[in-house]
Amino acid sequence: MASTDKNTLHWGELAQERLTDIASCTLSGDGVTRLPFTDEHRRANGIITDWMQAAELEVAMDAAGTLIGRRVSDGPRAGMTFIMGSHQDSVRNGGRYDGIMGVALACLAVEKAMADGDEPEFSVEVHAYADEEGVRFPTALLGPRALAGTFDPAVLEMCDADGKTLRAALDGFGADADAISGLARDPAGILGYLEAHIEQGPVLERADFAVGTVTSICGIERNVITINGKTGHAGTVPMQGRRDALVVASHIISEITARAQKLEELRATFGTLKILPGAVNQIPEVVTLSLEIRSPSDGERQAFSAMAKDYAEQAALETGCHAVMNQTYVQPAQQCHQPFVDRLQSATLAVEGSELLLTSGATHDASAMAALCPMVMLFVRCRDGVSHTPEEFASSSDMGVAIQVMAKFLKSL
Amino acid sequence: MASTDKNTLHWGELAQERLTDIASCTLSGDGVTRLPFTDEHRRANGIITDWMQAAELEVAMDAAGTLIGRRVSDGPRAGMTFIMGSHQDSVRNGGRYDGIMGVALACLAVEKAMADGDEPEFSVEVHAYADEEGVRFPTALLGPRALAGTFDPAVLEMCDADGKTLRAALDGFGADADAISGLARDPAGILGYLEAHIEQGPVLERADFAVGTVTSICGIERNVITINGKTGHAGTVPMQGRRDALVVASHIISEITARAQKLEELRATFGTLKILPGAVNQIPEVVTLSLEIRSPSDGERQAFSAMAKDYAEQAALETGCHAVMNQTYVQPAQQCHQPFVDRLQSATLAVEGSELLLTSGATHDASAMAALCPMVMLFVRCRDGVSHTPEEFASSSDMGVAIQVMAKFLKSL
Repeated sequence: MASTDKNTLHWGELAQERLTDIASCTLSGDGVTRLPFTDEHRRANGIITDWMQAAELEVAMDAAGTLIGRRVSDGPRAGMTFIMGSHQDSVRNGGRYDGIMGVALACLAVEKAMADGDEPEFSVEVHAYADEEGVRFPTALLGPRALAGTFDPAVLEMCDADGKTLRAALDGFGADADAISGLARDPAGILGYLEAHIEQGPVLERADFAVGTVTSICGIERNVITINGKTGHAGTVPMQGRRDALVVASHIISEITARAQKLEELRATFGTLKILPGAVNQIPEVVTLSLEIRSPSDGERQAFSAMAKDYAEQAALETGCHAVMNQTYVQPAQQCHQPFVDRLQSATLAVEGSELLLTSGATHDASAMAALCPMVMLFVRCRDGVSHTPEEFASSSDMGVAIQVMAKFLKSL
Repeated sequence: MASTDKNTLHWGELAQERLTDIASCTLSGDGVTRLPFTDEHRRANGIITDWMQAAELEVAMDAAGTLIGRRVSDGPRAGMTFIMGSHQDSVRNGGRYDGIMGVALACLAVEKAMADGDEPEFSVEVHAYADEEGVRFPTALLGPRALAGTFDPAVLEMCDADGKTLRAALDGFGADADAISGLARDPAGILGYLEAHIEQGPVLERADFAVGTVTSICGIERNVITINGKTGHAGTVPMQGRRDALVVASHIISEITARAQKLEELRATFGTLKILPGAVNQIPEVVTLSLEIRSPSDGERQAFSAMAKDYAEQAALETGCHAVMNQTYVQPAQQCHQPFVDRLQSATLAVEGSELLLTSGATHDASAMAALCPMVMLFVRCRDGVSHTPEEFASSSDMGVAIQVMAKFLKSL
């Protein structure tokens, strides 16, 4: 269902060229490694400045290291600002699209709106946040949190692997750690936030859609399940009466996964598992496994979590073992602003002739911006649903569709 | 069904005192740590020499470090020798019974036979092997292999954690590495071998028997199952269509365990499991797990292994994954000598009024002695079925029963 309209392709190819260009701002090695407040970041900001200036935006970096392109309207709603953006940083050996594509498409959407003579009657900003991935420092979302007033100054003292504090990294980059707390915007002046991002999943590809409108960003909880059984010699202890913690874990993994598969939007993942004593000829005594649950509905997530906890405890008891499940992290779901969802749907329908709604299973800058203003996201199809690898890919035609949809969305506000 | 006959208890208490005494031959720390060819071993051999001499045995150490107590008969079968024994060494932080109890009970069985006036008409030897556990060097069963002629001289160059070769350890201990290959006995002169050992499992305790006759020593095979799936973001990849290697592993563990539980004597244990990438928010791509299978019947073990391989491959395919199962180690089962089994049963029936047959899930010195002569084992109940820990325990009354049964067995030959 991808459009190959000539105009669409032109804008998409421009995006592709720009993303190829900025992919050179990386440490050596496979794919893209661009961490915040580094030389690679500085060079990338130079290129993004060019993109912003091509869209007739005035460029400045704020105290949190966010590069901001601004076009102040002389129209009737000049005091109101609509923001588009995403992050410039990547994971280690990541791809050319995650984050930076959202910055490139935002600039091109403004550029296209201007070219089409669709000057907004409100002010427009494009943001390139320094750090969303949280790879260099054990914190992330500094830029949008500063704008939303949810920034915690304590994170400034966190260190990277070389022992350098975030404060020192910011100040050395020309940002201003002490001024970050003054960045909070007045929600009354912000119309909203739109972020385009690669889907990082296979939903659009499976359904053959170039783009999709995000209705919500999933809530996340992480749990540790610890199963205590009894070890023993793998040869001398009969099968009957064994209290094998790994066998209990396997029942839990199979059953909880099967129950999650019956739900539309919920995801349950057991990503880590450790065994004590962990020897080929010893019955597993203790198994520790992680269970991450995500859902766009906090109620659904909480109910599933309670069920998983009950099931784990019961499955352990049935084998003479003992299980406990403890939550280690929780982040509520964020709903996208319904009027924005409607407008993005309409814009997509106009460009593509059909539209698809989906949820975001991952956290984004939009998650933090939700504390400041209404927000929405536009997902762009990525090949094989993969991200965070050098193989990450979005096509020129799909990005062209996204630029058209974003420009139409801007016009509709 | 434990006997508390006064005479039985006397011999059992003597065994308990001796085992308490020799437990002082240990490195410091919890439980007993007595590795071969060390000062602890040397002190233990001094104590074992006393036990042997109390049974009127002539004591000498052979070239492999086996302490041998010998009583040459002047009876009609003086040229034939019956051997009893076990190993003197322990695991790190092990208990007071594993191995050394078999040496103590063998000495006391001979001593009791003499006290009862039951002088055998054949020669008798009690052996205390240096190393069965294989803790210090990555090899074991040196003593019985030397006697059986299955000793591989290549192991002499293996090193302990301090870089000392087995050859140097033997020679420094007063044994003689170069003379080991000359130790092989002529099978024609060996009547058989009897080893008493704690059960290391719960069968006798569950059935309330002091001792049980071993009918065979299980064969062992070890396999590595590798499951290849596809990783992805735990939030963005829908549950449907995931190729989660850990979910496949959990199906395999559950099903293979359930099938093993339906078999009387077979044991299947998944003792290790590793995940790549192994992160809380990433779908498991590769899972590697070990499957150890033990059975007294090689045919049953091989059939189960083939079934497990087929099941693993099929379960992986059903989830879009790929599994391979490779055997990394195999050791065939050893059958105990049926006439010996019958005699031990009769002796147990005479002492206890009932008898129990069981298999050995673990390897013992008897496994190696089987290559030299007919063998049989007598298992002694151990508390909670545990071994290889400081909590390892066999009661005086149970050991007393074992001594009586062994003396009766000797008389029956």
